[in-house]
Amino acid sequence: MSESGEDNLIARYFRPLAKTAGALELRDDAAVLAATSGDLVVTTDAIVEGVHYLATDPPDTIARKALRVNLSDLAAKGATPVGFLLTLALREAGESWLSTFAAALGDDADAFGCPLLGGDTVSTPGPVMISIAAFGRVASGRMVKRSTARPGDLVAVTGTIGDATLGLDVLRGGRAAAAVAADASAAAYLVDRYRVPRPRLSLAKAIGNCASAAMDVSDGLAGDFAKLCAASGVSAVIDLPKVPLSDAARAVLAAGATTIEALISGGDDYEIVCTLAEPSWNELAKLAAGAGVPAAIIGAIVEGEAPPVFRDGSGCAVTLSRASFSHF
Amino acid sequence: MSESGEDNLIARYFRPLAKTAGALELRDDAAVLAATSGDLVVTTDAIVEGVHYLATDPPDTIARKALRVNLSDLAAKGATPVGFLLTLALREAGESWLSTFAAALGDDADAFGCPLLGGDTVSTPGPVMISIAAFGRVASGRMVKRSTARPGDLVAVTGTIGDATLGLDVLRGGRAAAAVAADASAAAYLVDRYRVPRPRLSLAKAIGNCASAAMDVSDGLAGDFAKLCAASGVSAVIDLPKVPLSDAARAVLAAGATTIEALISGGDDYEIVCTLAEPSWNELAKLAAGAGVPAAIIGAIVEGEAPPVFRDGSGCAVTLSRASFSHF
Repeated sequence: MSESGEDNLIARYFRPLAKTAGALELRDDAAVLAATSGDLVVTTDAIVEGVHYLATDPPDTIARKALRVNLSDLAAKGATPVGFLLTLALREAGESWLSTFAAALGDDADAFGCPLLGGDTVSTPGPVMISIAAFGRVASGRMVKRSTARPGDLVAVTGTIGDATLGLDVLRGGRAAAAVAADASAAAYLVDRYRVPRPRLSLAKAIGNCASAAMDVSDGLAGDFAKLCAASGVSAVIDLPKVPLSDAARAVLAAGATTIEALISGGDDYEIVCTLAEPSWNELAKLAAGAGVPAAIIGAIVEGEAPPVFRDGSGCAVTLSRASFSHF
Repeated sequence: MSESGEDNLIARYFRPLAKTAGALELRDDAAVLAATSGDLVVTTDAIVEGVHYLATDPPDTIARKALRVNLSDLAAKGATPVGFLLTLALREAGESWLSTFAAALGDDADAFGCPLLGGDTVSTPGPVMISIAAFGRVASGRMVKRSTARPGDLVAVTGTIGDATLGLDVLRGGRAAAAVAADASAAAYLVDRYRVPRPRLSLAKAIGNCASAAMDVSDGLAGDFAKLCAASGVSAVIDLPKVPLSDAARAVLAAGATTIEALISGGDDYEIVCTLAEPSWNELAKLAAGAGVPAAIIGAIVEGEAPPVFRDGSGCAVTLSRASFSHF
């Protein structure tokens, strides 16, 4: 009795990634996470070909993005990765695509200490879709929520904002592509930021210790941060000149090929926005510097129910026509 | 700043299903499962329109199937449900389809004590896909595996086998449709068995206490049970006349419109096959009778590495051309 195609596919490409005892070598219906003293943080995010990534993106970057968008959530919650479940919907099981995809997924699983626990592989006549559920641990009761920001807290963000949306524009041959046409390294940087998020797991413990509230920025800083404020029942003032931008983004901005509004409304940043008291910011800044992750204060939480105000360099509130990316 | 389409969709249809504190009303990036003394069992299964269900299936049955195929895994592992994550890939967010889908999903979540913890809603130009990751609890070290069947154990199966594959054949107007054309209730029974699995959660604790090994039968009894034997390093002898069949399946069989080989090789049964010592069978039989779930002995585990032997009424081994359903 020969093994089925799905079994062969799992054995060949994914069993090597199941490096933890609880995965049972992917030979069972389920995996086991052993009892521990802390809470388990669970999150899920899916990426769809042509929606969250381009069909022409290399399979290794697709694999990394699929896992990393979930690891980014764990980092923002202050959680240490435990493992993940993979659902892979494929049109066909192409050898070259799958081997490259699985190898990169395995590299990232190793690099971030997040082994494959199990999954499901299904065929679809439609676009490829990769859905991952990721698990992380925090000390009991210590998951960092969106709903616990306090008036007076500072607002901090990691990395730089807006690179990914420019990267997508470069890939689509938009205005950003023309703006960086003469600078191949800037173009490559922006494209890489779109294709391969940098989950800030090296700061997860620091976020857990320092932040009063946090979330990852996946659908645009402006809209995502507004959700954090709404969940916390607070408002905020954000100074747009303080929003950290990469040199490449500054160049596109200087060329008039984007606006600060577009940069703070574009998706796929996968940075962390968090709120914290000033002494905690001093600690986080030190830990971030030690981890080599940029972090910057962009504003402050204030009392009120109004949406956060984004101010330009002269202190005037900027109106955002489209605060957050939505697929519907 | 208006909420995005996805936020509205979540608020309207799915927030009412997030009835556990750890789901944080679906307002955060992640959910929390509080620390407990037992192990967590994690499993994931996806269903794709046109592959695992028909585009013409009612949305309430699609929702139930999506959750129940996962609950079936938990039941086979002896686990009590804790909650689930939902990834929903939609072409469009149709009001009527979504409200029916979400209401049925909520009913099942209530009925099986498995609340929605979180999820992701994405748009796709392709077929609808529903991927669920479900979580359950077992006492520490007590998840029932596939790999622990022992020679001398009996082999038991819950419910009846082959109904779902006949139900699909009825929906497709195949030979089974002709065989039950004069018996509308038999046709409806078989179709329902295809569309709405019956996860045997009422037996989960009994499986946990009695079974030496277990798995759920999703891709055909013959092929799935062969996997259990392979994982356990054992062989088995199964008596086909002992495989429990419904009256409807017997009628289709009597009409010559299917074969026992087809019934034990067809998918979507979502019953449990388990192995257990004879005293444990006596206990399981009692508990199953109490729960109103049919259970039957169909054979025994023997030493050896050979695939399980399926014997007909005269004791002759039957050759199976296609032991298990595979989507590739």
